Amino acid sequence: MKFVTYLKDGLENIGILKENDVVNLQYIFKSIGEGNPPKTMVELIESSSNDMIHKIGELLKNEKVPTILLDEIKLIAPIPYPRRNVFCLGKNYVDHVKEVKITRITGNDIPENPIYFTKAASPAIGQNDSIKFSTKVTKQVDYEAELAVIIGKDGKNIRKEDVEDYIFGYTIINDVSARDLQGRHSQWFKGKSLDSFCPMGPAILHKSKATFPVELDIKCTVNGELRQNSNTKNLIFDIPYIISDLSNGLTLKAGDIISTGTPSGVGMGFDPIKVLKDGDIVECSIEDIGTLKNIVVEF
Amino acid sequence: MKFVTYLKDGLENIGILKENDVVNLQYIFKSIGEGNPPKTMVELIESSSNDMIHKIGELLKNEKVPTILLDEIKLIAPIPYPRRNVFCLGKNYVDHVKEVKITRITGNDIPENPIYFTKAASPAIGQNDSIKFSTKVTKQVDYEAELAVIIGKDGKNIRKEDVEDYIFGYTIINDVSARDLQGRHSQWFKGKSLDSFCPMGPAILHKSKATFPVELDIKCTVNGELRQNSNTKNLIFDIPYIISDLSNGLTLKAGDIISTGTPSGVGMGFDPIKVLKDGDIVECSIEDIGTLKNIVVEF
Repeated sequence: MKFVTYLKDGLENIGILKENDVVNLQYIFKSIGEGNPPKTMVELIESSSNDMIHKIGELLKNEKVPTILLDEIKLIAPIPYPRRNVFCLGKNYVDHVKEVKITRITGNDIPENPIYFTKAASPAIGQNDSIKFSTKVTKQVDYEAELAVIIGKDGKNIRKEDVEDYIFGYTIINDVSARDLQGRHSQWFKGKSLDSFCPMGPAILHKSKATFPVELDIKCTVNGELRQNSNTKNLIFDIPYIISDLSNGLTLKAGDIISTGTPSGVGMGFDPIKVLKDGDIVECSIEDIGTLKNIVVEF
Repeated sequence: MKFVTYLKDGLENIGILKENDVVNLQYIFKSIGEGNPPKTMVELIESSSNDMIHKIGELLKNEKVPTILLDEIKLIAPIPYPRRNVFCLGKNYVDHVKEVKITRITGNDIPENPIYFTKAASPAIGQNDSIKFSTKVTKQVDYEAELAVIIGKDGKNIRKEDVEDYIFGYTIINDVSARDLQGRHSQWFKGKSLDSFCPMGPAILHKSKATFPVELDIKCTVNGELRQNSNTKNLIFDIPYIISDLSNGLTLKAGDIISTGTPSGVGMGFDPIKVLKDGDIVECSIEDIGTLKNIVVEF
């Protein structure tokens, strides 16, 4: 079951994918007797329950459910305005740690503990939106395909064995990064947080449709050329570890987003480095979630 | 003019200090003919104008304005739930850079560019609230008195000479820091973001009552012992520089909070380091803003 946020006639809606079409959440909530539908994805996540998800699943098996064609709507980021910054992991695939060891941004050791930083996303951009930047601000823009976990309910000091209970689902984030700014400002936040640097989507895969821990192929192409190609089972710190560790002393909230780090193949790992250029098409794909496609615009 | 957020009979209100009492914003808006008052400080900031501030100032000169005693209310953080993480500056006073050079957290050079990171504050705690932490999570909790700037309107690529237009006012943040976690996780976010680690307040001083750039004495005491004692004129990167630089490629929004860094005298600067202990009383003071007092609770 995949949840999407979309614009239709200028209004924001929540929907669920049924094959290649969308079913509006208002229709679904009316049909399953759930009362007023939530207005945002975060409200939906806060109010979701196993029972609700089960009822929706049963309803969607019905061939007569009215659907909207993807052509008729504009998909936006599933959570365009997260209630706080996206939590991010750095250096969380061994092959990526090795490829960046030559740069001055970071050391070359496999981290002993997770590296957490945050990324502003106000708003996160969606499917087919442009990654826009001025060459006066940065000349080294890079892609990072990442699996992002969406937290399903509030929790603190979560035990590893309980982590799955606290997850709502999974999406894709392209952790777009200005390498020159990451180096210049020492801490990574600014280089990760320029406007439009948080593509997210195209959908949230509900956890009920994924194994746990998730073992999904993750890829990134630039203009069709395969650059990143790994599997989320290769995370150094896996999702049970990350959520348990991050929630130690810090309450995670329903709707929080944790982007789990990127595998090797980023532009910075090439010699000489490859930077994104005007007109480039970046596609980040994760098995069972979809492909997040964005176009680069330099100005 | 100082704005506060407070609880009365369990409900959140906005008020303005009149000497040592509070005038409720609903009364003020009714009196100056401004229509429905905003429900949160961020809404107030978004809707504020020079004209509105002037009218409020004139009204408050009236001795007959009904006031509420501070004893009758509970001050909370002026912005308890910022719409995104607090933007923070690291190593932004020369004397503080020098004192921390012996630690493994950070290098000893005066930064050539601002160091930006973020701090989760969900919620920020307020006056007299407790800084609570488990010794299972951290054993090295430290204080950092900081001047925080509240952004008044949305802006991007703001020129230094225009920065004052984009400011709403100033408050105090105690950038409470778990030094062991800052080191352990490499990037600083987690060590800065434990629950209750963002005391804020007690009030927002409107920019119309401050010089620009602000030159205000800043102090911190622990159990009455003076630990930090400087002036905001000693910032390495001053407020015009910070806001212009941070907004370069990244839109700042009304209600965003930028904490400008701490002067020397933090616990980490002593040999051996001094950590906060159960029962400690930490008071951060900035001239013309007030004193933010919090109690340490270890559990």
